[in-house]
Amino acid sequence: MARETAQAAVALGGGHGLAASLSALRRLHDDLTFDELTAVVTVADNGGSSGRLRGEFGVLPPGDLRMALAALCGDDEWGRTWAEVVQHRFAGQGEMNGHVVGNLLIVSLWELMGDPVRALDWVGRLLGAHGRVLPMATTPMDISARVRGGDPADPSAVTVVRGQVEVATAAGQIESVALVPEDPQACEEAVEAILAAEWVVLGPGSWFTSVIPHLMVPGLRRALADTDGRLVVVLNLEAQAGETTGFGPQDHLSALFEHAPDLTVHTVLADTASLGGERELLEKVVHDRGARLVVADISVPGEPRHDPDRLADAFRRIVDEA
Amino acid sequence: MARETAQAAVALGGGHGLAASLSALRRLHDDLTFDELTAVVTVADNGGSSGRLRGEFGVLPPGDLRMALAALCGDDEWGRTWAEVVQHRFAGQGEMNGHVVGNLLIVSLWELMGDPVRALDWVGRLLGAHGRVLPMATTPMDISARVRGGDPADPSAVTVVRGQVEVATAAGQIESVALVPEDPQACEEAVEAILAAEWVVLGPGSWFTSVIPHLMVPGLRRALADTDGRLVVVLNLEAQAGETTGFGPQDHLSALFEHAPDLTVHTVLADTASLGGERELLEKVVHDRGARLVVADISVPGEPRHDPDRLADAFRRIVDEA
Repeated sequence: MARETAQAAVALGGGHGLAASLSALRRLHDDLTFDELTAVVTVADNGGSSGRLRGEFGVLPPGDLRMALAALCGDDEWGRTWAEVVQHRFAGQGEMNGHVVGNLLIVSLWELMGDPVRALDWVGRLLGAHGRVLPMATTPMDISARVRGGDPADPSAVTVVRGQVEVATAAGQIESVALVPEDPQACEEAVEAILAAEWVVLGPGSWFTSVIPHLMVPGLRRALADTDGRLVVVLNLEAQAGETTGFGPQDHLSALFEHAPDLTVHTVLADTASLGGERELLEKVVHDRGARLVVADISVPGEPRHDPDRLADAFRRIVDEA
Repeated sequence: MARETAQAAVALGGGHGLAASLSALRRLHDDLTFDELTAVVTVADNGGSSGRLRGEFGVLPPGDLRMALAALCGDDEWGRTWAEVVQHRFAGQGEMNGHVVGNLLIVSLWELMGDPVRALDWVGRLLGAHGRVLPMATTPMDISARVRGGDPADPSAVTVVRGQVEVATAAGQIESVALVPEDPQACEEAVEAILAAEWVVLGPGSWFTSVIPHLMVPGLRRALADTDGRLVVVLNLEAQAGETTGFGPQDHLSALFEHAPDLTVHTVLADTASLGGERELLEKVVHDRGARLVVADISVPGEPRHDPDRLADAFRRIVDEA
């Protein structure tokens, strides 16, 4: 069903999962299904190059923002070259080891301009980005998690773990996550984009450290409740060791709902191959919530990663059937 | 005297001195006096951010190349913003302290592209640069100096000091400098630019560590001998503590000639205020060499730095009178 007017889409997430959804959504931007595309990125990372820069300069962790910008880069030589540059990670044994050039570029723009959003827009211009990249909040934060069974001597004990790296690698089962501080200031432009969007895509990605954190920012959560946009949750292809060990698709979705009981979901998108024998369990969780389940071949065959073209086809189908 | 066809100019130097000559020469590029402008940059620096990157990655020191590129940046918001970004130096107390973003950008482009010239051209495109920036050689090198009087106990003794920082800060009087290795590979594009140029500008800048080194690269020296372009030597405004302590204008020029006895100089440009009572001494050295002396007000009044507009006016006069 052809549509007369283009629509706006917002993708929420972080890391490689968000890069995957953006790689698909940019195709719908390029074919004019969407006339606006905005990425809203988790900014709770405390590891790697981002964590070092956050510690040294007290800035937002730039890494996931940089990765989202690169995923939206222009598809000419200019855009591809600068995307490759900003994604370049220094090797070697010295002080630069592990730092990523784009992270340093973003931090210097932040230092020069003061305004995190304006600085990211400049990197977007550099890359000829097909969309806008925003942080979910304008001040750094930590993720904390209640983890059960981390202590072999007392498997029923619950401990609180703080820090994105620490949460993602905690032994035991994550029961819930929270932000520290609890009420970070949502990025105003991200709130506006969600309110104006026809479509909001949440996931895939590290479930407790990249996807659910968006729902814990009060301003974003209000915007998700208030928007007329339809929320599409894209499930992961498999459980993630350390973070969602043993989770089936329905467990991911249940964890999301436990963190946001008031969230209205329009569509849940799952990969055919990832469902295994658990489709009925997932269908029940989806339908109990009043949402629609779309199951499609959206992964690279035999690999645990989303295929941008197949994911784009699934998004098109969801948009066309709405 | 108006000229019918535009001409090509090459500026040789390094650091702030080269940035000063380029800031002036770009004005002659903008008004079409020159249709091509090429900077050829010393790459023997071993200090600061450049020295750290050179030590960590075995690359050319990027700092003076970056400074030359910034001096040529486009004069719109785009060019000025990216110039400010690439010039941004990290403060703070951590591992990034003192590093300059543009240096990191250049090194990552070198790592990605392998070809130092192609990588610099990409930074030039980013900045909308009004000219091209090339390294004088394609492999890193050191400067060494014979220094007399560094040891108070034996004022006539001559010692050899190695390293740009060590030479620039050596106690005693520099008698001569050399490159280690002695015969670095000249940048082929720099040789071609010199051979094709109508005008070649050498200096101002740190005399022994940024200006004279160009004459010690065999390939550049041959090109300077073979070109039909006219060589203009721009003298410094004052002696530089440590490097040329006690040097008058004629001493600078004599040191240059001692390092390049076969060099043909067309014009020597000196600042009126910097001459003091030594104009006759300078005139003798210039005329003995068959060159022409131009004395003009080319400094910012009361400050030891060149004024880009005044320096540009002096260059225009030299070009017009040729």
